[in-house]
Amino acid sequence: MGLFSKDIRTLDDLFVHQLQDMYYAEQQILRALPGMIEKAGDAQLRGDLTSHMEETRQHVTRLEKVFQMHGQAVRGVDCPAIDGIIEEADTVSGEIEDKRVLDAAIIANAQAVEHYEITRYGTLIAWARALGREDCAAVLEQTLEEEKTADRKLTSLAESRVNAAA
Amino acid sequence: MGLFSKDIRTLDDLFVHQLQDMYYAEQQILRALPGMIEKAGDAQLRGDLTSHMEETRQHVTRLEKVFQMHGQAVRGVDCPAIDGIIEEADTVSGEIEDKRVLDAAIIANAQAVEHYEITRYGTLIAWARALGREDCAAVLEQTLEEEKTADRKLTSLAESRVNAAA
Repeated sequence: MGLFSKDIRTLDDLFVHQLQDMYYAEQQILRALPGMIEKAGDAQLRGDLTSHMEETRQHVTRLEKVFQMHGQAVRGVDCPAIDGIIEEADTVSGEIEDKRVLDAAIIANAQAVEHYEITRYGTLIAWARALGREDCAAVLEQTLEEEKTADRKLTSLAESRVNAAA
Repeated sequence: MGLFSKDIRTLDDLFVHQLQDMYYAEQQILRALPGMIEKAGDAQLRGDLTSHMEETRQHVTRLEKVFQMHGQAVRGVDCPAIDGIIEEADTVSGEIEDKRVLDAAIIANAQAVEHYEITRYGTLIAWARALGREDCAAVLEQTLEEEKTADRKLTSLAESRVNAAA
């Protein structure tokens, strides 16, 4: 996108731009997850994050599928939002020594990532439908459901054990 | 927080750090909202964002109250996550000329802000409870409910009118 031009002219352009934003975001998440898994002390937290890393690879593949279904080249654009969320996660984690407090922070940061994805996939699905692309919406819906499940699992883990331990 | 020290030692420290993060975030949101309202074309969208700006002022006041209840000085810390979300909103809005497409983008960006707040207030409430501060949790719960309502209103406006118009 040109810095001083107005390159997003239609809802279709906006939909494609948001797909590109999420394509970049999912890849940044894939890069950040191994560090979060390594730092996590709780075995179930490590397991949940590892499963979610596998799902995240699927999310990248599904985005590629949607680009193709919509006749668009697969590419990413910078996403300052996910960069900021991950930067904040790294900074806060770096300030914590105690493993149990660190687990509580890792869960919170993973949930911030999930919520970013939940809002963006929700928007992408609504825009796909408005554009008459129910087929694209159906693919994106699978990812949205997995993000919501991942978020619920993290809430439940925090409430059942991690926060009390910290 | 010192860059190379480990300043967050306990869940209580983490709770206070997250309060400081949200105190900064709410103020950045208060600064960003007038620009979003000015750009919005749809009268209901302008009205909803204006009401939410009033609520946001209350959220700042409630955070100050929680700092005081918890015996902590009122202060903010940098929050790269909200800075990134707002930067992304500004960049995308700057690429759009068409007022109806811009409204769809403004709703999406406002929802990204709401979801960031929903996840952080959810975490703050869980941590307040784990720390035995049901009183702080109750104050934060009021804000969480307002953020969720704001998000639902934006979804409903997008689905009922704005996306179709774009």
